[in-house]
Amino acid sequence: MHTGSATDQPPPAAATVQDESWRIRRTAADLERLGETESVFALSNGWVGWRGVLDEGAPCGMPGSYVNGFHERRELSYPEEGYAFPQASDTVISAPNAALIRLWVDDEPLDIRTGTLRGHERVLDLRAGVLRRQTEWISPGGRRVLLRSTRLVSLPRRPVAAVHYEVEPLDGPAELRVCSDLLANERVPERSEDPRAASVLTDPLTAEAHRTTGLDGVLVHRTERSGQRVAVAVSHLVDAPDTVTATSDGTPDRMRLTVAGRLHPGERLRLTKFAAYECAPVDGTPADELADLVVAEADAARADGFDALLADQRASLDAAWQVADVRLDGDRELQQAVRFAMFHLIQAGRPDGDRTISAKGLTGNGYDGHVLWDTETYVLPVLTYLAPAVARSALAWRHAHLPEARERAAELRLTGATFPWRTIGGRECSGYWPAGTAALHVNADIADAVLRYVAATDDKRFLAEAGLELLVETARLWHGFGHWSDTGTFHLHGVTGPDEYAALVNDNVFTNLMARRNLRGAADAAERHPDLAGRLGVGPAEIAGWRAAADAMFVPYDRERGVHQQSAGFTTQPEWDFANTDEDDYPLLLHFPYLELYRRQVVKQADLVLAMQLHPGEFTADEKARNLAYYEARTVRDSSLSAAPQAVLAAEVGHLDLAYDLFAESVSQDLADLGDKTADGLHLASLAGAWLALVQGFGGLRDDRGVLSFDPRLPRRIDRLAFSLRWRRHRLRVTLTSAEARYELPDAAHDAEVELWHHGERLRVTGAEPVTRPMPPVPDPGPEPSPPPGRRPTRRSAD
Amino acid sequence: MHTGSATDQPPPAAATVQDESWRIRRTAADLERLGETESVFALSNGWVGWRGVLDEGAPCGMPGSYVNGFHERRELSYPEEGYAFPQASDTVISAPNAALIRLWVDDEPLDIRTGTLRGHERVLDLRAGVLRRQTEWISPGGRRVLLRSTRLVSLPRRPVAAVHYEVEPLDGPAELRVCSDLLANERVPERSEDPRAASVLTDPLTAEAHRTTGLDGVLVHRTERSGQRVAVAVSHLVDAPDTVTATSDGTPDRMRLTVAGRLHPGERLRLTKFAAYECAPVDGTPADELADLVVAEADAARADGFDALLADQRASLDAAWQVADVRLDGDRELQQAVRFAMFHLIQAGRPDGDRTISAKGLTGNGYDGHVLWDTETYVLPVLTYLAPAVARSALAWRHAHLPEARERAAELRLTGATFPWRTIGGRECSGYWPAGTAALHVNADIADAVLRYVAATDDKRFLAEAGLELLVETARLWHGFGHWSDTGTFHLHGVTGPDEYAALVNDNVFTNLMARRNLRGAADAAERHPDLAGRLGVGPAEIAGWRAAADAMFVPYDRERGVHQQSAGFTTQPEWDFANTDEDDYPLLLHFPYLELYRRQVVKQADLVLAMQLHPGEFTADEKARNLAYYEARTVRDSSLSAAPQAVLAAEVGHLDLAYDLFAESVSQDLADLGDKTADGLHLASLAGAWLALVQGFGGLRDDRGVLSFDPRLPRRIDRLAFSLRWRRHRLRVTLTSAEARYELPDAAHDAEVELWHHGERLRVTGAEPVTRPMPPVPDPGPEPSPPPGRRPTRRSAD
Repeated sequence: MHTGSATDQPPPAAATVQDESWRIRRTAADLERLGETESVFALSNGWVGWRGVLDEGAPCGMPGSYVNGFHERRELSYPEEGYAFPQASDTVISAPNAALIRLWVDDEPLDIRTGTLRGHERVLDLRAGVLRRQTEWISPGGRRVLLRSTRLVSLPRRPVAAVHYEVEPLDGPAELRVCSDLLANERVPERSEDPRAASVLTDPLTAEAHRTTGLDGVLVHRTERSGQRVAVAVSHLVDAPDTVTATSDGTPDRMRLTVAGRLHPGERLRLTKFAAYECAPVDGTPADELADLVVAEADAARADGFDALLADQRASLDAAWQVADVRLDGDRELQQAVRFAMFHLIQAGRPDGDRTISAKGLTGNGYDGHVLWDTETYVLPVLTYLAPAVARSALAWRHAHLPEARERAAELRLTGATFPWRTIGGRECSGYWPAGTAALHVNADIADAVLRYVAATDDKRFLAEAGLELLVETARLWHGFGHWSDTGTFHLHGVTGPDEYAALVNDNVFTNLMARRNLRGAADAAERHPDLAGRLGVGPAEIAGWRAAADAMFVPYDRERGVHQQSAGFTTQPEWDFANTDEDDYPLLLHFPYLELYRRQVVKQADLVLAMQLHPGEFTADEKARNLAYYEARTVRDSSLSAAPQAVLAAEVGHLDLAYDLFAESVSQDLADLGDKTADGLHLASLAGAWLALVQGFGGLRDDRGVLSFDPRLPRRIDRLAFSLRWRRHRLRVTLTSAEARYELPDAAHDAEVELWHHGERLRVTGAEPVTRPMPPVPDPGPEPSPPPGRRPTRRSAD
Repeated sequence: MHTGSATDQPPPAAATVQDESWRIRRTAADLERLGETESVFALSNGWVGWRGVLDEGAPCGMPGSYVNGFHERRELSYPEEGYAFPQASDTVISAPNAALIRLWVDDEPLDIRTGTLRGHERVLDLRAGVLRRQTEWISPGGRRVLLRSTRLVSLPRRPVAAVHYEVEPLDGPAELRVCSDLLANERVPERSEDPRAASVLTDPLTAEAHRTTGLDGVLVHRTERSGQRVAVAVSHLVDAPDTVTATSDGTPDRMRLTVAGRLHPGERLRLTKFAAYECAPVDGTPADELADLVVAEADAARADGFDALLADQRASLDAAWQVADVRLDGDRELQQAVRFAMFHLIQAGRPDGDRTISAKGLTGNGYDGHVLWDTETYVLPVLTYLAPAVARSALAWRHAHLPEARERAAELRLTGATFPWRTIGGRECSGYWPAGTAALHVNADIADAVLRYVAATDDKRFLAEAGLELLVETARLWHGFGHWSDTGTFHLHGVTGPDEYAALVNDNVFTNLMARRNLRGAADAAERHPDLAGRLGVGPAEIAGWRAAADAMFVPYDRERGVHQQSAGFTTQPEWDFANTDEDDYPLLLHFPYLELYRRQVVKQADLVLAMQLHPGEFTADEKARNLAYYEARTVRDSSLSAAPQAVLAAEVGHLDLAYDLFAESVSQDLADLGDKTADGLHLASLAGAWLALVQGFGGLRDDRGVLSFDPRLPRRIDRLAFSLRWRRHRLRVTLTSAEARYELPDAAHDAEVELWHHGERLRVTGAEPVTRPMPPVPDPGPEPSPPPGRRPTRRSAD
């Protein structure tokens, strides 16, 4: 039997000597940590996401085949209700899983937990954008087979994912049976009690249509409560000896292709599966139309063939890496980790449409698949420099959900718009309001991401179509929420800042500075676009009100201690008793009540330090040094969002070893599974933070006044750091060594020009030639800040 | 048939002209508000409680047959979990209902919603301690019958309740059938969404044993999760013409006696039912033994007869009223309301055992039947003066639950003991920690109730056996929880005070002053009982630590505005926009998020004002006047706990009309159903608060320094106010008119003596003769404080 032109020579799993910094490898030794591996090996294109589950689907930590935004809603109930407590929450659910391919050898199912595993290796190829697998297995009955697969989720083809699967007997003839499944309502294991993990919904999909035609099939399902429809088609190619037969069958929840026959050593059974995913509102595209659409997309992919998908994938990635790659000479392990981080950032979003990037991307169901503030504060600032169209898509998603944010503000009796603390579908899903609804800073975070995007791209069309409205409605929130003191200062009381070991505080510096930027950014944009602003009802009086509030925004400072207060009164709160806190007591939130955490000077994650990162011009160098020392001593880093901002500030103050160790922690979050949570999905913000730690920290990039400036200073551990970023359509490449900094526009015409500052010196970099400048000596910053006992990041800087 | 000597002449329902101030009457006109009537007519003896449901059980707002402390546990779940969030909650459930007696007339069930109601009156007799009912009904078939019943829950006989039931045909012979039920797992209607209402558990009781013997029966049940066993026996007397037959039958959940026969006009069918209730832990008294016990108790009651129960009830109440009665000449309606309030306080608790009084007593299932801080802060201070043994029992209940409170403190990583914010069985049941666990003041409230009880009674044995340990463990909580500032002041941060429109505040004045009293009270008691204290591990160093913390306790004061701050910074919070708050927006918690409520200067209930009530010596007269004016303008009284403390302070400051109107609101809370919540049970704290408003407000009673003082001043509306209170075993009677105050010891020997102060003059009152003193003129306090628009209490003072 020979039904198509499948790839004859799929890329070998480990054929030649490769640069390990471009590969992530897991072998049989790693099978203990299946869930983590599935997240690390997740493939995505910002639309479809497949967790790196084994082809055969078992053993499995947590299955996951996602479509960006596809979710169900579930009821929330509270022991004690409160006004405007969200009554339902979105939760990510899997679309039908098209990745499954199971194998039976002489009627024994291949399962790596049975028989004998002679070899097992899986490799995520960061340049090819594929997950390769090679397994040599001896069945319990003694038959030896070699199995190879290559899986991709196509970056250029939004709906498409594919698997090439190949199996051969090695030591004698064997009855092989390969079942390629498209499976809806796949069983999901029960999850832990941890609130950060996803809630599990059983059988969330209701079948609407299914068709099986020859080797191909399609399933259409809808959700019961969120009103979404999803269609998935699969199309197969089989390449096998003529003794092999193929049959297919379908049920509402499963389409299965079975390929079976007797193979001899030297013969191979090859199966290529092309899948296409679409989803739409149930009152949008009808089920049949959506089915036809995905069938056409899967058929088109099959017609082009797996090799074409591979080639396109490589080309897409080559283009992405040209901007996104970071060279980190001197630390091979972290060089690999940085590329791993950038790979997942590249594949998390899309330049088209209006989808955003959730906290875990499409790599797992942690946080119920919700989008949180870290998208705007950590991920989008990086993508704004590396893939601005992706950042724009994510901001367009926020804009698309302005109606829900306006409704929420009205429900909360606030003005303007109040974006949800966590959501998929656009409505507030936080079930604990002191660390949800009260964290109003998410609104300023969105405005900040808009301002950063517009500053870096000068995308006036986006500003007109979406950005201005986002800025205006969030500015209105702050103006209505804040109040004036008797002495003419403007205050924001009763909010929660980034540090989740505090809540309902007054004048959180981070929030106040972000709100100030929001107000001023809205005022500037409205003045630049008076007609557009007028259509939003914005006039000079409202703008003047915003500016007055911004100018009078209060920033609490403790004169006696010479440090800013994370929030009003913070420095007079009781201290945490670190001396009597055991190592096992971390993370503190699992061992102490909020009652203790909230009232003490213990910081879960960078808050005032994050404010200094995002608003470098609001603090003097001395203030930064004193603040860093003060807060470093009280920050336990129980959040993966913390290390990166700390790294940036440590680097700026001159504690380069500490900065490097914090960077190492941020970039290793998932590859080393530092928080034991990687199984729930990757920490995209931490991975993005690693780029910020390098580029803002050691590169010294600052852009908060609309101009690019660099104050680079390398830690001892790094011989060379090279990175690129886009600035107004140019790619600026920066290469740093201990001796010099080199700035260039490698792709630009000779007369192209970018203005930037290097350690206070204004430079004009043109397309004609690089500019190099010496690296000034790093002044001695004095003794390194002391983190709480046992909480210093692992020392890597001096390795 | 004639099976026993039932009462021939039960007390007529409205036989003679009576003083309406001793009766609460409801007629057919009130049937629209069944639930409210059931609470108002609830009978209780502090052990057994029967809601005032109609004999026939329907129509019914909410059935309720309670045993004090009998409850089930139910799981709590949170949308987002947190450390030490309670995982289960107690909820009150009904014991088997023995009050039910149903009637069929010519096979048609008596139901006041059918047929024709010719007369219907129910009267709660506050002196007899019975609920009488008289209904004349014409069945749909046209048969006219007269039904009379008298119900009591015996004050002197803890387990016993009884009903005398009598029916006669009026206009011709009728087939009458009377079914007297003892019914477990009675159907309970679904309740509202309001979090303050009880959760409903279906079929919470599991049958363990049942017996039916002749006219008597017993049911034994247990709960599934709280580990409690309840046994209820009924014993009947039937007095009827010989044509009437009696049969009985039993199932695990129901014992029924059916009495049926043909009666002619002039003939009566009389049934008397004696019930006895006991409960015990399932690992305590075995089911059979508990059954035998209640059978014996019911039999003994039957043997004595209903008349004896009535006589004993009257005698008990006469004794109680001797102390508890308050005469309020000049306002007949409120005279009745005050007696209603005092009646429910009398019957809410018991002098024996170690049970407490929940927020609703045994009158309904509001707040899930939980005990909250208002027991110690509102109810026990009154009972300490009127029925000190009942106060002692309730404090003994707290002492019995010290083990759970110590466990909870350890779980919260605090020192000493942390009593639950709400509970039945002793463990924390609050599902919203910012207004539950964080309201640590409950611990000082308990200590305060201990100190008040000991001061008024000089009960050294209680102090030794329970009081000292309660004082010590709560003092330890405060000493460990608080912290020292750089300037040597002691602070309590991150707590929630009485005002539930604020949470997680610093240095709440109420909490700090209560904690100070707690610390000093513990120190004093420990020094007076060094041996006992030593056994609790208390030595001089610990005592010195308590005193130091108490002496340094910070009390925030706003010098600029000349007022105390309810909590640190309160007076600089943004104001509430009362001008744009509609009447429909109250209660605010149902229309605004906590996000808005918490950060603004809006006060749900007396907090700083309550601090001034409980700690009068900590504030100057000027401070009281300024504070009252400031907080009155910001207090919306969305809690029934608020009016009474406001009344006390308004009276002290001299705003006697306002004080009277606030008193009127407090005392009318349930009779007028001001909060539309009386159906869930009575607001015992509000009713107790009414006594405080009269006695502390107009009587000017202060006792916070261990001496009795009175600064009486009557409002215009009252001609005479007379009340009693117990002080060191004497009954002091105080009679106030606008002209003079009279102090006497009416029951004491001639040489008995009580020292007290009258408007600053020391008096010695002996048993020999009353002391009278003139009432000084009330100084003009200036303009009345201005409550928020629309929130002034209804004007009654000038009627």
